[in-house]
Amino acid sequence: MVADLDAWRRERQAAVERALDAWVTSDTPAALGEAMRYAVLDGGKRLRPLLVLASSEVLGGNRAAAMRAACAVELIHAYSLVHDDMPCMDDDVLRRGKPTVHVRFGQAQALLAGDALQALAFELLTPDDGSVPDAMAAHLCRLLARAAGAGGMAGGQAIDLASVGVALDQPSLEAMHRLKTGALLQASVLMGAATAQTGAAEVAALADYGACIGLAFQVVDDVLDVTADSQTLGKTAGKDAAADKPTYVSLMGLDAAQAYADEMIGRAHRALDGSGLPSPGLLHGLADWVGRRSH
Amino acid sequence: MVADLDAWRRERQAAVERALDAWVTSDTPAALGEAMRYAVLDGGKRLRPLLVLASSEVLGGNRAAAMRAACAVELIHAYSLVHDDMPCMDDDVLRRGKPTVHVRFGQAQALLAGDALQALAFELLTPDDGSVPDAMAAHLCRLLARAAGAGGMAGGQAIDLASVGVALDQPSLEAMHRLKTGALLQASVLMGAATAQTGAAEVAALADYGACIGLAFQVVDDVLDVTADSQTLGKTAGKDAAADKPTYVSLMGLDAAQAYADEMIGRAHRALDGSGLPSPGLLHGLADWVGRRSH
Repeated sequence: MVADLDAWRRERQAAVERALDAWVTSDTPAALGEAMRYAVLDGGKRLRPLLVLASSEVLGGNRAAAMRAACAVELIHAYSLVHDDMPCMDDDVLRRGKPTVHVRFGQAQALLAGDALQALAFELLTPDDGSVPDAMAAHLCRLLARAAGAGGMAGGQAIDLASVGVALDQPSLEAMHRLKTGALLQASVLMGAATAQTGAAEVAALADYGACIGLAFQVVDDVLDVTADSQTLGKTAGKDAAADKPTYVSLMGLDAAQAYADEMIGRAHRALDGSGLPSPGLLHGLADWVGRRSH
Repeated sequence: MVADLDAWRRERQAAVERALDAWVTSDTPAALGEAMRYAVLDGGKRLRPLLVLASSEVLGGNRAAAMRAACAVELIHAYSLVHDDMPCMDDDVLRRGKPTVHVRFGQAQALLAGDALQALAFELLTPDDGSVPDAMAAHLCRLLARAAGAGGMAGGQAIDLASVGVALDQPSLEAMHRLKTGALLQASVLMGAATAQTGAAEVAALADYGACIGLAFQVVDDVLDVTADSQTLGKTAGKDAAADKPTYVSLMGLDAAQAYADEMIGRAHRALDGSGLPSPGLLHGLADWVGRRSH
């Protein structure tokens, strides 16, 4: 199973890379596209696209729509990193092993590139060539907009901003991450489901799976921030502790945080087991991948 | 006609204000909604919403969808002002007679509020209550995303950024404004049309009308930057000249710029006359309003 999953993952990562390369063009005014491509291409685990594609494939969804949805989610993720790295936010200079976008292109261009990447995400979901049926396009836009906005990712970032130096307890920390990273990871699974005819019970199980994956992802992130070095991470290690930000490790300790991540992965597996989906193997595999990632 | 138009305009501006007040809620994490509401409410001419509503009403479009589209366009406009005012862009402290969002809430919150407003625009277009038919929602998202992104507003901003201190000629200036402000103004007209059954010839005429309105709007803006004071404008007057940015006035002189605006308004009228639309009076009225605005 794991061998198959690794092969599937590499093949799909490459396909996502090709699609992003084609859709995020440099054919834009004033080199804006260069900054956008720099932000998006050549790096990243592509976890969100993989979740979209796996969910769609497990359900026999529309392949063309799924690839568009996969890339749209990744563009939202990429834009959030660009803006999050800016001096007025986390002020970070290293991302995926490269200088951050504002270091390379200047703050103004980074701001614009992030803005344009968010718009491009919705462009990808609404092609005018008929490749995504209207009802599917509307549903995909609905899921993505809600996951990206004030009730999702952006809202989570706002909590994060307000929580530096504040003694958040675990429920508050969890509420923050449920929005900041969880909403988009869960939306990835649900957008995959939206490319197929999916029953309400299956959608509910996948929403549960997505929520567990999202939480586990963040706990592992906090663990890696302590245990891995910057080169392995491709970003500055130890920065949460340096910024006096609350993390699962600072609240629970390292061992308990790792155990909590494992528990969430277990819950994700059980959500799939109870979903009634005939062949959810890819999603099981991605859950394990999230649990054992090293960067 | 003008008396009727003024009454229609005031009524619709009030309706847009009420809708924005309801849809841009403060019920978000960490006061993000407060910054979003500050950016959006209580100010602005609402030209873009008025164009959406007028276009929809002229064509007998879906009223509920038109109000959502009107507010969605305004949210994109509002987010672009928030980001454009930030220190790394135009570094402006006054907007609509109030301190700009980053002055009031800090740069990080301004950045996030802008990001969340863009997402909210697409949320408004894709309600889950069936009030916007799927095909219409998909079409509205398609138009808005393209007008907002690298091939529209954001691309125009990038040209603007690259053009400070550069001797742009008039065609280059026009190409910049066609994207920076023109794309969203034109999209407003076309989104109104998308709320109705509109034939290709009518769409083409409205696209022409919208392009002329967009250009005239920018020329008038450049004229007002020279002739009006900050209090009337509600923003810092004379800032284009101070920033050594090319404008229609700096390229053509004041009188020729005013004459060019009038010419564009005349072309907008003629586009409507040739459109075959039975009662385009509201759109004629808005064209005149754009031509004679004082702030």
